[in-house]
Amino acid sequence: MNQPQVHATALIGNGVTLGTGVRVNAFVNLYGCQVGDDCMIGTFVEIQSDVKLGARCRIQSHSFICSGVTLEEEVFVGHGVMFINDRHPSVQGALRRNWTLSPVLVGAGASIGSGAVIMGGVTIGKGAVIGAGAVVCKDVPDGATVAGVPARTLARS
Amino acid sequence: MNQPQVHATALIGNGVTLGTGVRVNAFVNLYGCQVGDDCMIGTFVEIQSDVKLGARCRIQSHSFICSGVTLEEEVFVGHGVMFINDRHPSVQGALRRNWTLSPVLVGAGASIGSGAVIMGGVTIGKGAVIGAGAVVCKDVPDGATVAGVPARTLARS
Amino acid sequence: MNQPQVHATALIGNGVTLGTGVRVNAFVNLYGCQVGDDCMIGTFVEIQSDVKLGARCRIQSHSFICSGVTLEEEVFVGHGVMFINDRHPSVQGALRRNWTLSPVLVGAGASIGSGAVIMGGVTIGKGAVIGAGAVVCKDVPDGATVAGVPARTLARS
Repeated sequence: MNQPQVHATALIGNGVTLGTGVRVNAFVNLYGCQVGDDCMIGTFVEIQSDVKLGARCRIQSHSFICSGVTLEEEVFVGHGVMFINDRHPSVQGALRRNWTLSPVLVGAGASIGSGAVIMGGVTIGKGAVIGAGAVVCKDVPDGATVAGVPARTLARS
Repeated sequence: MNQPQVHATALIGNGVTLGTGVRVNAFVNLYGCQVGDDCMIGTFVEIQSDVKLGARCRIQSHSFICSGVTLEEEVFVGHGVMFINDRHPSVQGALRRNWTLSPVLVGAGASIGSGAVIMGGVTIGKGAVIGAGAVVCKDVPDGATVAGVPARTLARS
Repeated sequence: MNQPQVHATALIGNGVTLGTGVRVNAFVNLYGCQVGDDCMIGTFVEIQSDVKLGARCRIQSHSFICSGVTLEEEVFVGHGVMFINDRHPSVQGALRRNWTLSPVLVGAGASIGSGAVIMGGVTIGKGAVIGAGAVVCKDVPDGATVAGVPARTLARS
């Protein structure tokens, strides 16, 4: 069996499960998440509770994956990608714990470009391509390519 | 009294003052800044000298707050937000120390979406909402909602 | 001779060369790269193999510089800047190692604003200015100023 390789500086908190062959780089903060077999987690990545990563996902450096996000297998997350799970964030909502979690699903084989922001509540289809720097505010069909702020469809499969 | 909780990996440099009930997460770099009571500072955050955070601000992971920024109380800063204090940055300006600091003020209760960039010299009004991925180049009135690159007003209170 | 100053938490991997007077801040991950004299490397920066930085470059916090990037001297890289070297990233491409590296060249004295994303394959000219939050998808002439998503020319020198 291929043991996970975890850098000495990485923090693996309570409730994390790492599949076989997982690689976790330096300065990483994981807690309460499930990481599928053979995933790669880059430097300066944080993944919160209740996130599920399918097998062979690659999470590049500087990205943030919040509670409520599910990635199917072989999803590519570029560098500096920010996921969101609260469409109306505020301090008062956080303090009163009365905000609503808007989950995100990313289909198998999708690719999210560096610097993209993924709004809470959206579903990104299988094999979809999100351009670098895009701000994705609505669902992306399977195989579609989107880009821009807000993201618009460039091509459909 | 509620002592600050500071993660063992966080760096708290000279001149930092932490109010009661402050929480500082892992891999944080603070120096010369004032952090008000009950603020939360997320993972991978850097806050520079002379920054002032009012009470109960929440600074989410991967954000950068530069010298010259003042946040009033209960400001929500999303993930991967970058503040700027130099409208014409260059190596020569930095080496010669002849650049001009352009301060930023964010009013109480404002919310800044993930991935936003806040240009030097702007004032964001109380209760304003900055959309995810926005690039804010001019002042935002109290209670207004802005989004886009450059940010434009979507709604006024 | 002015020895490099490297923070105790910074990781300096195999094959890194640091010029005289280099300063490396906290929580940095460097491997296989050449850093010219008197460069400043900010907090939470990762620089990959085969990157070359000319003298006196300043790489601000939270930025990522990938293999295939060359910066000439005195390039200013703002905070949270992401460089890209693969125009069609995917997990399958990474696993099969059949992707094509698209190099990036940044000319002397250029300034890249915070939150910008630089696509693989582009050349940024000497003294060019990239606006904050820009997504640069094509070449930028010497001395030009560009901004937006995708980046468009605002001024030429």
